[in-house]
Amino acid sequence: MEFLFLYQMKKISLLGATGSIGTSTIDVATNNPEEFKIIALTFHSNIEKGRELIQKLRPTYVGVGTKEIQKQLKQEFPTIQFGVGTKGLIEAATLDEVDVVLTAVSGAVGLQPTMAAIQAKKDIALANKETLVMAGEWVMQAVRENHVKLLPVDSEHSAIFQCLQGQDTKKVRELMITASGGSFRDYSRKELENVTVEQALNHPNWSMGKKITIDSSTMMNKGLEVIEAHWLFDMDYDKIKVVLHRESIVHSMVVYEDGAYLAQLGASDMREPIQYALTYPYREKMQKEKPFDLTQIGALHFEKMNFTRFPMLALAFKVGKLGGSYPTVYNAANEIAANAFIDGKITYLAIEELVSRAVEQYEEVKNLTLEKVIEIDRKTRKIVTAWVKDME
Amino acid sequence: MEFLFLYQMKKISLLGATGSIGTSTIDVATNNPEEFKIIALTFHSNIEKGRELIQKLRPTYVGVGTKEIQKQLKQEFPTIQFGVGTKGLIEAATLDEVDVVLTAVSGAVGLQPTMAAIQAKKDIALANKETLVMAGEWVMQAVRENHVKLLPVDSEHSAIFQCLQGQDTKKVRELMITASGGSFRDYSRKELENVTVEQALNHPNWSMGKKITIDSSTMMNKGLEVIEAHWLFDMDYDKIKVVLHRESIVHSMVVYEDGAYLAQLGASDMREPIQYALTYPYREKMQKEKPFDLTQIGALHFEKMNFTRFPMLALAFKVGKLGGSYPTVYNAANEIAANAFIDGKITYLAIEELVSRAVEQYEEVKNLTLEKVIEIDRKTRKIVTAWVKDME
Repeated sequence: MEFLFLYQMKKISLLGATGSIGTSTIDVATNNPEEFKIIALTFHSNIEKGRELIQKLRPTYVGVGTKEIQKQLKQEFPTIQFGVGTKGLIEAATLDEVDVVLTAVSGAVGLQPTMAAIQAKKDIALANKETLVMAGEWVMQAVRENHVKLLPVDSEHSAIFQCLQGQDTKKVRELMITASGGSFRDYSRKELENVTVEQALNHPNWSMGKKITIDSSTMMNKGLEVIEAHWLFDMDYDKIKVVLHRESIVHSMVVYEDGAYLAQLGASDMREPIQYALTYPYREKMQKEKPFDLTQIGALHFEKMNFTRFPMLALAFKVGKLGGSYPTVYNAANEIAANAFIDGKITYLAIEELVSRAVEQYEEVKNLTLEKVIEIDRKTRKIVTAWVKDME
Repeated sequence: MEFLFLYQMKKISLLGATGSIGTSTIDVATNNPEEFKIIALTFHSNIEKGRELIQKLRPTYVGVGTKEIQKQLKQEFPTIQFGVGTKGLIEAATLDEVDVVLTAVSGAVGLQPTMAAIQAKKDIALANKETLVMAGEWVMQAVRENHVKLLPVDSEHSAIFQCLQGQDTKKVRELMITASGGSFRDYSRKELENVTVEQALNHPNWSMGKKITIDSSTMMNKGLEVIEAHWLFDMDYDKIKVVLHRESIVHSMVVYEDGAYLAQLGASDMREPIQYALTYPYREKMQKEKPFDLTQIGALHFEKMNFTRFPMLALAFKVGKLGGSYPTVYNAANEIAANAFIDGKITYLAIEELVSRAVEQYEEVKNLTLEKVIEIDRKTRKIVTAWVKDME
């Protein structure tokens, strides 16, 4: 049996290969060539990096963002199969030989290929927040019906997942999600008025993509994680807590009814949760491990979360409890607003203003379907894009 | 099935009922009267407290330390069965109806009844360090052969045990045992020369018995825990680390090969690991829970262990690696020396001196048996008692 486990190579489809999580995933896979092979990958527009990855990984299938990129690369790699856009993502996610789909694309675009992969009985390693934020109910139902595994890749959810293994999960009192507080954790609301994009992109602990770094500073990211945790672990919002933990060493915790806390901790290295999702329920030695010494760090701090300072986090609980498509509106509005800030079109505090306005003005649609939710996502983006124009 | 689990009362034999662990165990049991019943108990000499417990718990069997106590109590409680000394302990531990034996007696006296209980197919909740320190090899073999559970009650071992549940135990890199450092953690070796018993008994975090509080300050206690962990978790000494953690909030950790740390944390309340050992693999709500708020504590500190400052900890690894009956000598010498210090017969630093001398002068006996180990324990006590006399 052990022989089998060790040498049964896992075939991975990597959606979003050129981003930050994509890069870490490739690092994990290529550091463990006997365990993992990336046989399909997708990327949107970074053709230089995409070409490099194709040469390095020699996948069977490649999904790209535009027809032009497809045409260009097809000439260079005639034996590889290419696809474009959502169709390309779905094809990559449902390829026959694929064992596990790692969804690392950013945004609402991750939802459809992930659903398709679940229906095609693929295990999912999920790094795309929108999948659960927009469609948690449908996704979790599909996961149950198709008997596949939905493995979290976010460090917080991976930590919680690890702390739930082998435990009496009926006796969970709370999930305690840690938050670094992001780039502006020590700024007052007043001081936030004139912050720049550059300042916002300077995260204290993690090196990540631009949008997620902005989302960390507004706590939108933490808000989305709360909603994800609700679906992933089937947990009431009242049992999900957020605690400020500046060092980002404790990735999250589970509190049990007997008073015991289980915590997962370690280096701020996304390769760890990625590898765990890919090796679960086993573990493998981390290759080229990031040095980590708890006695060097010295102290771990925990502070109460200030919901007045971080209204987007308070709003997450509100839209989460409202349910339906409220989380979709919350997320879509932020996606437009955060990118508008990155592009210098709006001020930092306008992000919160736009997200709050979108949620306030929203009226829930009746008899929601997955298609309607995708439509609400599109519509919200359109509305908020118009609001951004008015602000410019 | 659930109905069965909920209402199948666990029948407990509590060895060492009047001590600190005994008191906490009774608290857990009486707070959960539908889950647990203490049907047998033993105590050594505290007849007032013993009488109180008999009245409160109405056990079937009571083991006591002397014939005088037996005679006295038999008159008061004619329907209860009594036994004396080691025979009483063994009878209490092997009573037919008993499901689990909680060994909370202090010292080498815990070994024989625990072995007898294992052979009688009882599960063991182990709070007695000497059982594994003296006879780890035999005890663990008996546990395997009799298919019983050996559940740790020490907060450190319970934490490690909890962090191993549902995990890939083949991929453990290290067990990381936390140590508060005890009453004198900030004293230099020089400053230890004139410390008093009173000072030594002032533990920063835990309220425990006298001898274990002294053992905390010399790190003898941590040393014994290292040896226990070696046997309990079948772990090489090179994979067992000790880290100074002043707050005693993180009870211990397990480090896996992928770089992930799992930690168990919570209040400094012995009822938690006791209850976990009794409810395992389930958990139950802690009644009258000690308040605990990580954000109130604020910071958790971790420091490298100083083996020069704490030579008894270094010696634990040495005797552990030497194996055989070296740990028995280490423990027996300390039991005499620590009590001699408590009784005002020797100085604080003489404890270390006597333990080191006993280990240095010891020559390993060949073809060890359990009987020989018990004999070595007795002999060591005799020798060290004589050394104490010379010092007085």
